[in-house]
Amino acid sequence: MTVKGASGVVLPGHRLELGAEAPLQLDCGLAMAPVTVAYQTYGRLNADKSNAILICHALTGDQFVAEPHPLTGKPGWWAEMVGPGRVLDTDRYFLICANVLGGCMGTTGPADINPATGKPWCLNFPVITIGDMVRAQLRLVDHLGIDRLFCVIGGSMGGMQVLEWAARYPDRVFAAVPIACSARHSAQNIAFAEVGRQAIIADPDWCGGDYPLSGKNPHRGLAVARMAAHITYLSETALHRKFGRTLQSGALTYGFDADFQVESYLRHQGSTFVERFDANSYLYITRAMDYFDLAADHGGILANAFTGTRTRFCVISFTSDWLFPTRESRAIVHALNAVAANVSFVEVESDKGHDAFLLDEPEFHATLSGFLDGAGEHRGLPR
Amino acid sequence: MTVKGASGVVLPGHRLELGAEAPLQLDCGLAMAPVTVAYQTYGRLNADKSNAILICHALTGDQFVAEPHPLTGKPGWWAEMVGPGRVLDTDRYFLICANVLGGCMGTTGPADINPATGKPWCLNFPVITIGDMVRAQLRLVDHLGIDRLFCVIGGSMGGMQVLEWAARYPDRVFAAVPIACSARHSAQNIAFAEVGRQAIIADPDWCGGDYPLSGKNPHRGLAVARMAAHITYLSETALHRKFGRTLQSGALTYGFDADFQVESYLRHQGSTFVERFDANSYLYITRAMDYFDLAADHGGILANAFTGTRTRFCVISFTSDWLFPTRESRAIVHALNAVAANVSFVEVESDKGHDAFLLDEPEFHATLSGFLDGAGEHRGLPR
Repeated sequence: MTVKGASGVVLPGHRLELGAEAPLQLDCGLAMAPVTVAYQTYGRLNADKSNAILICHALTGDQFVAEPHPLTGKPGWWAEMVGPGRVLDTDRYFLICANVLGGCMGTTGPADINPATGKPWCLNFPVITIGDMVRAQLRLVDHLGIDRLFCVIGGSMGGMQVLEWAARYPDRVFAAVPIACSARHSAQNIAFAEVGRQAIIADPDWCGGDYPLSGKNPHRGLAVARMAAHITYLSETALHRKFGRTLQSGALTYGFDADFQVESYLRHQGSTFVERFDANSYLYITRAMDYFDLAADHGGILANAFTGTRTRFCVISFTSDWLFPTRESRAIVHALNAVAANVSFVEVESDKGHDAFLLDEPEFHATLSGFLDGAGEHRGLPR
Repeated sequence: MTVKGASGVVLPGHRLELGAEAPLQLDCGLAMAPVTVAYQTYGRLNADKSNAILICHALTGDQFVAEPHPLTGKPGWWAEMVGPGRVLDTDRYFLICANVLGGCMGTTGPADINPATGKPWCLNFPVITIGDMVRAQLRLVDHLGIDRLFCVIGGSMGGMQVLEWAARYPDRVFAAVPIACSARHSAQNIAFAEVGRQAIIADPDWCGGDYPLSGKNPHRGLAVARMAAHITYLSETALHRKFGRTLQSGALTYGFDADFQVESYLRHQGSTFVERFDANSYLYITRAMDYFDLAADHGGILANAFTGTRTRFCVISFTSDWLFPTRESRAIVHALNAVAANVSFVEVESDKGHDAFLLDEPEFHATLSGFLDGAGEHRGLPR
């Protein structure tokens, strides 16, 4: 049983152990066991188990949605969204969030021990997919005795999982909220993911993926990967407003130190990220995003993924998100319309870029509240 | 005298040597001598020296505009633009292009020998600016006996040099064509440049910048820098059209090889780039771009950079260029309008992104031809 994160720190929270009697079937064809699923919950499951919301986290997120992060001490990534009277109201809903398969916060990933060898998996860990992540979550939902989730919600890669849930297990999902995501990783998204992977792979301390065996860590490569990715999470406008060309010291130094505040900010993003994330997990999770293509899994027609669905959808995008632009959300909405699904679509006006889904955007929060209230009424949840 | 590029290959072409009797004054406060300026010319200078066009190259460009590259054998970067009867008509114009200061194709840069130590400059090379690059070009233009250039033209960082020429030496520039550029590097541009630099600096073979002394070369870091930058040169649409999600082998391999064509393409861009470019030059030239801020050099008001100008301007941008978007060109046009300059502005419809200025875009070429014809008439050049 894994109780430690990749960092070696003992992580708090719940664990589900999937044993050899029921291995996890993976899209690559392999079956994996044992598998640990690390998860957190907030609020209480009601008597008829009808108030459960599954939160799916993004590439570098984790299950610590609404409490201080056990490694960094920073607030949970959706802390403002979760709590009594908040959008994800812990007085009404039972919230579940599991670290994704391949992750480094307690759920089985490449830094964990391969029982066949007694050593860390490293690159022997199978390449996993968004479908595999969701299959692990399904086992957790089964374990919790929940027949039908009231809602599955998530942004970015979390939104991909939402779509996968709605497509694969429509009877298990009453409502679905895919946010700032797409039904397939675009060429540009794959390109940025590949730059990140190559930055890690180029670091000699990556050791062909075997750094856990040699006591090394490709911190420099991972930091560069994070820096490149971080630019894509912000809009040009947000970068301009936050930093512009403001200098750290008020004057150019004619050197390569961080003259500009935006440089200092990016370096900080890189150096803090490596304290909480595993480089091989970064490879595996970005690869899962690259592989995601819901239409391809359904004969090339996205609408086929949702044929006959009774799930209620709320698709949300942000105007300044250039990583998962609104046209990607619109493609999802068109597919849902083609099968006469119950779908609402909101493009939230925001200049904060992709990261808007993590931020306190009033229109975004109001949209979510309204949708959840309406869906709750249909589900017969008490107000 | 430098006759070799950073690669050690003897490079063809002309050299101007600036000796200790007239060192090059740099913006950082230092004076540099000796300095070599490596340049190419095409066509013939006419009797009254009124037909000279100075071409300014971009970050990773060089003076080999219209002939096979001496290191790669590939056609010159503007080969389609240059020749008898072409846009830059060698029957009419005398074309000059010099490798920029800090470069690695013959003009003095960090890979060259510091005469004070007898060893390569490496990070002892002073941090240079777009202004310094232009000051070196001015010396070349003086050397060629040209009082007034008929035109200064360039895209991207080349466009920054065009603006610097027009602002600093208005009497030396009859016409100016800044293409796909801006009057200052934006926060997002600085961010991408910084990611590239950090990728190089993270490579242990960079050796604190001293790799030329140790026989090493940070090829991996430089390749990652190039890959990240290359994404910014293309539009999302262009990446989608060129590659989409097309697979190399027709099927997912569930591994980290280049499953997708876009990955293979990016890796190729990285690996071929390192054969012709020096990592320290990449640091210095991107830094010069970061430092460029024409308004800041003129009391914070861009229009002040052009007060009283008699230069004829043609400002060109491309609709799908997100690295130097049209609004940056518009800011230049507004400043020129504010001082009643003679300026035309064309936003070329193209889905090819920033790289469109290097490609065979008919509307772009037609715009340039028309502008040069008109300016030539005013300058009294024979048709």
